Amino acid sequence: MGNSFGKFFNISTFGESHGQALGVIIDGCPAGLKISQEEIQYELDRRKPGQSKITTARAESDKVQILSGIYEGVTLGTAIGLMIPNADARSGAYSDLKDLYRPGHADYTYEARYGVRDYRGGGRASNRETAARVAAGAVAKVLLKELLGLETLAWVEQIHTIKGKVNREQVTIEQIESNIVRCPDQEAAEKMVTAIMQAKRQGNSIGGIIKFAVNGCPAGLGAPVFDKLTAELAKAMMSIPATRSVSFGLGEKASEMTGLEHNDPFVMKGDNLVGTETNNAGGILGGISNGEQIYGSLSFKPTATISSEQRTVSTEGQNVLLKARGRHDPCVLPRAVPIVEAMINLVLVDHLLQYSVASVDRLKRIFS
Amino acid sequence: MGNSFGKFFNISTFGESHGQALGVIIDGCPAGLKISQEEIQYELDRRKPGQSKITTARAESDKVQILSGIYEGVTLGTAIGLMIPNADARSGAYSDLKDLYRPGHADYTYEARYGVRDYRGGGRASNRETAARVAAGAVAKVLLKELLGLETLAWVEQIHTIKGKVNREQVTIEQIESNIVRCPDQEAAEKMVTAIMQAKRQGNSIGGIIKFAVNGCPAGLGAPVFDKLTAELAKAMMSIPATRSVSFGLGEKASEMTGLEHNDPFVMKGDNLVGTETNNAGGILGGISNGEQIYGSLSFKPTATISSEQRTVSTEGQNVLLKARGRHDPCVLPRAVPIVEAMINLVLVDHLLQYSVASVDRLKRIFS
Amino acid sequence: MGNSFGKFFNISTFGESHGQALGVIIDGCPAGLKISQEEIQYELDRRKPGQSKITTARAESDKVQILSGIYEGVTLGTAIGLMIPNADARSGAYSDLKDLYRPGHADYTYEARYGVRDYRGGGRASNRETAARVAAGAVAKVLLKELLGLETLAWVEQIHTIKGKVNREQVTIEQIESNIVRCPDQEAAEKMVTAIMQAKRQGNSIGGIIKFAVNGCPAGLGAPVFDKLTAELAKAMMSIPATRSVSFGLGEKASEMTGLEHNDPFVMKGDNLVGTETNNAGGILGGISNGEQIYGSLSFKPTATISSEQRTVSTEGQNVLLKARGRHDPCVLPRAVPIVEAMINLVLVDHLLQYSVASVDRLKRIFS
Amino acid sequence: MGNSFGKFFNISTFGESHGQALGVIIDGCPAGLKISQEEIQYELDRRKPGQSKITTARAESDKVQILSGIYEGVTLGTAIGLMIPNADARSGAYSDLKDLYRPGHADYTYEARYGVRDYRGGGRASNRETAARVAAGAVAKVLLKELLGLETLAWVEQIHTIKGKVNREQVTIEQIESNIVRCPDQEAAEKMVTAIMQAKRQGNSIGGIIKFAVNGCPAGLGAPVFDKLTAELAKAMMSIPATRSVSFGLGEKASEMTGLEHNDPFVMKGDNLVGTETNNAGGILGGISNGEQIYGSLSFKPTATISSEQRTVSTEGQNVLLKARGRHDPCVLPRAVPIVEAMINLVLVDHLLQYSVASVDRLKRIFS
Repeated sequence: MGNSFGKFFNISTFGESHGQALGVIIDGCPAGLKISQEEIQYELDRRKPGQSKITTARAESDKVQILSGIYEGVTLGTAIGLMIPNADARSGAYSDLKDLYRPGHADYTYEARYGVRDYRGGGRASNRETAARVAAGAVAKVLLKELLGLETLAWVEQIHTIKGKVNREQVTIEQIESNIVRCPDQEAAEKMVTAIMQAKRQGNSIGGIIKFAVNGCPAGLGAPVFDKLTAELAKAMMSIPATRSVSFGLGEKASEMTGLEHNDPFVMKGDNLVGTETNNAGGILGGISNGEQIYGSLSFKPTATISSEQRTVSTEGQNVLLKARGRHDPCVLPRAVPIVEAMINLVLVDHLLQYSVASVDRLKRIFS
Repeated sequence: MGNSFGKFFNISTFGESHGQALGVIIDGCPAGLKISQEEIQYELDRRKPGQSKITTARAESDKVQILSGIYEGVTLGTAIGLMIPNADARSGAYSDLKDLYRPGHADYTYEARYGVRDYRGGGRASNRETAARVAAGAVAKVLLKELLGLETLAWVEQIHTIKGKVNREQVTIEQIESNIVRCPDQEAAEKMVTAIMQAKRQGNSIGGIIKFAVNGCPAGLGAPVFDKLTAELAKAMMSIPATRSVSFGLGEKASEMTGLEHNDPFVMKGDNLVGTETNNAGGILGGISNGEQIYGSLSFKPTATISSEQRTVSTEGQNVLLKARGRHDPCVLPRAVPIVEAMINLVLVDHLLQYSVASVDRLKRIFS
Repeated sequence: MGNSFGKFFNISTFGESHGQALGVIIDGCPAGLKISQEEIQYELDRRKPGQSKITTARAESDKVQILSGIYEGVTLGTAIGLMIPNADARSGAYSDLKDLYRPGHADYTYEARYGVRDYRGGGRASNRETAARVAAGAVAKVLLKELLGLETLAWVEQIHTIKGKVNREQVTIEQIESNIVRCPDQEAAEKMVTAIMQAKRQGNSIGGIIKFAVNGCPAGLGAPVFDKLTAELAKAMMSIPATRSVSFGLGEKASEMTGLEHNDPFVMKGDNLVGTETNNAGGILGGISNGEQIYGSLSFKPTATISSEQRTVSTEGQNVLLKARGRHDPCVLPRAVPIVEAMINLVLVDHLLQYSVASVDRLKRIFS
Repeated sequence: MGNSFGKFFNISTFGESHGQALGVIIDGCPAGLKISQEEIQYELDRRKPGQSKITTARAESDKVQILSGIYEGVTLGTAIGLMIPNADARSGAYSDLKDLYRPGHADYTYEARYGVRDYRGGGRASNRETAARVAAGAVAKVLLKELLGLETLAWVEQIHTIKGKVNREQVTIEQIESNIVRCPDQEAAEKMVTAIMQAKRQGNSIGGIIKFAVNGCPAGLGAPVFDKLTAELAKAMMSIPATRSVSFGLGEKASEMTGLEHNDPFVMKGDNLVGTETNNAGGILGGISNGEQIYGSLSFKPTATISSEQRTVSTEGQNVLLKARGRHDPCVLPRAVPIVEAMINLVLVDHLLQYSVASVDRLKRIFS
């Protein structure tokens, strides 16, 4: 279980790091959406390994193949099958990991759960799995843009102790993509690159913080009680490998404020448009979007794979020393940016569809 | 949608704050579990309004009625129906809220979504909804204890700027329940009570932080890829009203650490028991429990309802001043403790069942 | 598990025959639907026991209580909670059934599954469970009528060997409700009543056939591959107690026809309306409605409960003789008619919502 | 929606008849199951086109590729990805079908639903889609055999008006596979082959009846209320293309019997084994298996594709004559046998897992 996400726009993914291929089935994408292979490939390219000096050296072109569900550039309404073959799987490097548990990794927990594991490159627990999410998220993104003009942005806000200064209300995709670390603060970005390169040289790794913002989300998305937009986004964010926390609006800061300080007064922002004066809530009230910018933050731990020597135990229960080989990212955040965006878009598109059928008035527009 | 939670141990809830009753159906509770009405009522009593001077004055006894699924003190395997009648619903106090949107509340967003709302006491968006979760969580708790001896604890760690000092490895339910604010640090607890009473007098409200810990969870619970234990717990936590962030293990602190610092070395803790030396990961690796204590934190905003005057708009689009009446908690955290525990137990019991069928070896123990 | 039905318009039910109450939560009913308690009660009255001399003598008024989700006669979009208290539960009659398995009943299979059972009146396996479905189906019916003008009809076609002659294209609800057996062929209906009364006198029971027809279903409802309308309706029908088979269109007769005979030629039935000349397919092609009348048939076994003496075994493994007491229907079909209609409406309303989001063109009508 | 099947053992499929490939993701297969590519291929070979003179001439080897979830011949517990490339797709033959609706086919209904369709070979509505089900069903079959020794058999009982005589209690897989029509009655089988060849020569098609039997299913599988084993199997059966009806046990015959005749008396069949003297119920009582043989029947309409001339309408609303080209089966039943078995096994394996967690006693065997 657990390989499926979304209720109305449902995706199921498969694929181990060193298996034949990764892939995803999208079940529930509305018919008649124009989408090109390039739009999907663009997002995969943002996530793919080997894209810069601060990412893993594994050379995967991550070329997506459309197997079904899209015909002549238009979605058919049927299941969309997307596949990304694994090309540069050097499993040899992992053979000495077969008999031990890497600290910070899921080796031991997979074995505790399943009694068996594919030790090559972390198997299903590898970050490589997220390629399938990004491919699916690209389809969600096109649909959200087509119907709502909605845009989701994520960016690196902090790497280790280096903090960027980013104005969430004005940041653009161009600024995010303007450097290899995906931090719109160019000055901070340079320092971040230096820090990542240093960690790499030292056989160590570092973590950081990604922020996100959604522009153009109408009021009304999100479902009480359990499927609040915050709840669904929190799950989506925490399902991304290496995440440690997620927050919305002012996050933990809100816990030291009073109600008078935190409540956003409602104001009219147009003839019929209700808005809020401030946006401490992060665009979501009672789990439902209020039309203001949705924003939040999530933190990542440092990459578990490091090449420095570490103590651990073998599958036989012996104390051993591990010095990992294999290729890996010294910091996962630059490549995690499109993953964060993809997961947000998958949540939003699901709730866009749920919203569409949540009132008789809306349904009457279809059936009249 | 959104009134249902869990895959194998599935609950569906209903109920508005000022409707006839609240309730829950539990679908998937294994048969043959001994459970008494008292065990369910105990948890409801911890959550119920009017339990102390720092909670709302609404007088609800919140007496649970077992309508089905439990016979002669034993679960039947069939759907368990639990109902909690609303007794002290004074809707009159809310009639002047019919035509405006309270800041920080879901009034506007419900109307944006549904075109209609039950304005009495916040309707479905009221925290009162959580009584149904707590009732269901009580059943989950009994099952987890019966099968695993597992115990979930939550407590108030911080109210506004007052921080408690609590040792998560040693805290007990007795300590938590020893004061009305549910902070095991008695000294801090007293200050917290004072702060809450002061906020109440000022017509204001305050927020804070709750921490949680799970003892006795075996390794192997949690499902890759999307249903990681962290992801599922994050959704569960963020579905609780007024939550703003959730974190696991060291949370955001992990983002400023290196891999060498953060990785927990594996060590043998018994002849066949693998453990970790430190527990920075918070008991979960790759989304699957590793046998160590699971722990984390979640933050709450200050209660949206305050009796101070606030600016807002009417449903007709006019600027108005609001001075709320109605009964409410100046700080939701003391009563949120059992809600947090309930939601964690609901996630864990679901994954206990999923774990049971995740390997052929386990299934053979049933069918041999 | 198994107490929930439907994806977008989801219902969960609870309740044992002799427990406190039966009930249902509807999750996913669109907001803004006008519905009265009377509309729900009307359907329950058609199903309730004791409505005529040919039904069980158990006296249940089956008065529905609306606990949530409907306010001032309009659905709120939130979970709708409906409850039907059990009033006339005479469990004493069942105490001697505690230690044996009634032939044709689920006593043994529940015990095999759960290791425990509520023996009073069949517990959850009782037909009484269907009251909750009928209540939910009434809401579905109102929504289908409001949006599509759709009408679902079911009627008794055959009791034991007595066959009615009914024109499925012209039959009306008035004809169906014109006699206590719910067979629109009045002459056959009289014979059916006689046959049922005779079975009752003999301490025996009889079965029969119910047919159904849906008028006004637009083309496009039903989802390939697994959720074909035929598949979903088949599940819905076979989930009704005592059903033995279900068929669509010509049913088994189609298996002795050739393609040339069975295929329905397409013809234009208006300027832009495609239809079929014949309707052998029963209004569904490839699992999707084609705009013609949907029709089919389902068969019921004779009631398992009979007062004649039967051989069986005790829970201790001894051969015993059973002579059942307790109140029961000598033939379930007259009361099954509204159950069949309810289940069909629940399927159709679910697919109405799915259809609404199945194409971008339809969604654009909402968001433009 | 609708491309997913099963709750605990969940499959999602994709693929159009003339797209790149078909495939399936299995989510929820327990880890540690030994399974070979040959076991999957064996079932696909039974379903593949071109296997005999009475099937379509389309030449597809239907070679399955295992993309993930199985490593070194053992399931990993992670998502199993299986792919079957399309090799012999001659779409040219379908270009003249682009602008009209074939009678008996889903061309019109797909267009009504989606506003767009892949007209090549019926697209997603093609029977070719079932290859993915058969691949998934093969995995289910191995698991059922491993844990329960359970065997599911299906066979052709009738083609057009030619009826075989088959003893459901003694029929074997060898008898079924002993001729190309898959009817264990050899004499009838020969007549059936003749009838199919005749229909083919006449540019016509014929239907028939398939029966099925499950040996070795323990008592206790199937979930009240909506997920009765009969209900789940009915959905599974009716989701297979061209099916028109499904029945269990005596089916429609039961409707003309009395309770005294139909009820199966319980008898002891061993020291602790409860059984029934007769098996009119078809091994299922109250939706739960009782340990006796599960059996039933389903009927198929004649293949919709015929090469004789037929009247229909164009997408422009004009009356046209259609004389289909393209390759097709004059009778779908011989190749449908493994599809029926696959769908039954998918239902049973899902309920095997549900059963495993339905009682605390069973769970204690895992956790003690």
